[in-house]
Amino acid sequence: MNAPAERMMGTLLLPQPYVLFLGDVTVAGYAKTAFGLRDWAAEKCVGEIRLDGATVTTGLDEMTAAEAQARGARALLIGVANPGGVIPASWRASLVEALEAGLDLIAGMHMRLSDIPELATAAQRLGRQLIDVRVPPAQIPIANGRKRSGKRLLTVGTDCALGKKYTALALAGAFARRGLDVDFRATGQTGIMIAGGGIPMDAVISDFEAGAAEILSPDAATGHWDVVEGQGAITHPAYAGVSVGLLHGSQPDVFVVCHEPGRTEMIGTAGYELTSIEEIVELTLVLGRRTNAAIRCGGFSFNTSAMGAAEAAALMAAETLRLGMPVADPMRGGAAFDALVESCLA
Amino acid sequence: MNAPAERMMGTLLLPQPYVLFLGDVTVAGYAKTAFGLRDWAAEKCVGEIRLDGATVTTGLDEMTAAEAQARGARALLIGVANPGGVIPASWRASLVEALEAGLDLIAGMHMRLSDIPELATAAQRLGRQLIDVRVPPAQIPIANGRKRSGKRLLTVGTDCALGKKYTALALAGAFARRGLDVDFRATGQTGIMIAGGGIPMDAVISDFEAGAAEILSPDAATGHWDVVEGQGAITHPAYAGVSVGLLHGSQPDVFVVCHEPGRTEMIGTAGYELTSIEEIVELTLVLGRRTNAAIRCGGFSFNTSAMGAAEAAALMAAETLRLGMPVADPMRGGAAFDALVESCLA
Repeated sequence: MNAPAERMMGTLLLPQPYVLFLGDVTVAGYAKTAFGLRDWAAEKCVGEIRLDGATVTTGLDEMTAAEAQARGARALLIGVANPGGVIPASWRASLVEALEAGLDLIAGMHMRLSDIPELATAAQRLGRQLIDVRVPPAQIPIANGRKRSGKRLLTVGTDCALGKKYTALALAGAFARRGLDVDFRATGQTGIMIAGGGIPMDAVISDFEAGAAEILSPDAATGHWDVVEGQGAITHPAYAGVSVGLLHGSQPDVFVVCHEPGRTEMIGTAGYELTSIEEIVELTLVLGRRTNAAIRCGGFSFNTSAMGAAEAAALMAAETLRLGMPVADPMRGGAAFDALVESCLA
Repeated sequence: MNAPAERMMGTLLLPQPYVLFLGDVTVAGYAKTAFGLRDWAAEKCVGEIRLDGATVTTGLDEMTAAEAQARGARALLIGVANPGGVIPASWRASLVEALEAGLDLIAGMHMRLSDIPELATAAQRLGRQLIDVRVPPAQIPIANGRKRSGKRLLTVGTDCALGKKYTALALAGAFARRGLDVDFRATGQTGIMIAGGGIPMDAVISDFEAGAAEILSPDAATGHWDVVEGQGAITHPAYAGVSVGLLHGSQPDVFVVCHEPGRTEMIGTAGYELTSIEEIVELTLVLGRRTNAAIRCGGFSFNTSAMGAAEAAALMAAETLRLGMPVADPMRGGAAFDALVESCLA
């Protein structure tokens, strides 16, 4: 996967590589961001920094901020989140130490780095950046709907939080292994950290939502692919606006529907049944044709992490027959995933 | 039309009545906001304030800020916009005078009142409010999709800027004249000034768009109607996200499609054909059923301001036959408009 050749105004661009900061974490689930970075952007991570009491590790080399800087790190990335998204007082001395070692700070927590006076003062004194990946950049334009050059794939879903980011990353990786020129385009905070840039689409002001999607995947060479991380679901009663703006602005040539077998109800809503896969396909085609008449479905990505291997394989084989297009779990890979990749590129 | 009984957290509530400020305007078109207030919220306007050189008038009594305050005004509302949305230096003494007379200031221009140090200082000294109706209030929740009590009507459109606000105002007025309990729910800056409150939907962060629409039209008595001002169009390549969030969160029982005969291309886009009325009906039904299974189309509102009376009447009669539902221009009223109102209430 190539590093983005350029970033237009209006998208975030993060200083890389990172050193991953784990704080004093003792619950592996709180370090999901650090694990995501290790798994999907190992080439961007020089090591990890842990405080006394931490029991979780990414397995990367442990080091100090000064050592990370000497190994080329340009930023300390907070890879751990407490419930509540607070940056505890016990971390602050280490974060100031990183600023003093010449590193910028990157976080995507609820509490903003720049709202902590100690960090704001130190960053200003040292001329360092405090980057919050939940904050969209300024100067996002209104969408103009102009068709852009290059090819685009968007992952969509039957709901939130079921694998749109991982599917996009896996497809972008597979495209790159086939020798294609491809960029993963990130639309959420973890994706942005992995990609080293992007736009947090759910934090963009509504009027600029499609415009943000347009500048996220700019004009490109004819054979170039942008694989865009989807958000929400076009039938989610809270997030459909985000999903539709992203669909219109992305102008995808191909979309892949992400789904979690067994999920029956949409996240965060009062008894909303999950929309069927077929309905999502139909509605994505109807809405997506508005900005790209050639839009088509490339297949289906199932998150089968709660199932055994045999059960998952049987289900996906049956669903491939029923839906008439490849169904695969990118985390399991194999021939099914190859078929999905081929279908997307067909 | 009743004044809103209560406003929940997350919606704007403007101090009323207003005195309309016209500055030194000499071009009637720049005073559209003042004319809209005079035409749709006369009971909220005690008079107008003009500076030397102004040649445009609303026809309301001219007065000073002190006189307006004595007549009960609680705010000076800037009812004029220059190209660029700037608040010129020549207005500032009058605006400070209004603050000193005990009035708050309300504006919806590009330049914010609070960014003018002279006004910010005076407002703080005097304990007065500077209210920018383009700025959404804080504490908007994520939508939960729960069905609310009461009835709702939403105006939708084949494009932007073709009469969704005026149609909603006219329908709310007609409902009130029939003795119904009704509130006009404003979603844009002029509408908010007319209603005395509301939420500027296009300025809300995408993640909260449907949530904003939910709190804009809260639970109400069984026979109560909220008539919600629509925004954008669900097929507009720049604004569909705003429109879909508003549609989902509003949970309309009835929608009216607004259209301008003769318009062939969407505003602000590179050669996008206008979506047909029938397609807008179909798509609004498909998407709207997600949060209100009983959603139905009440009819069509045509903006025939560019046509002669006979031509407009003939076109609307023909379109009523073709579409099989009432077509009316609310600005022209008459039997056609009565039929539209009856159809919405049926």
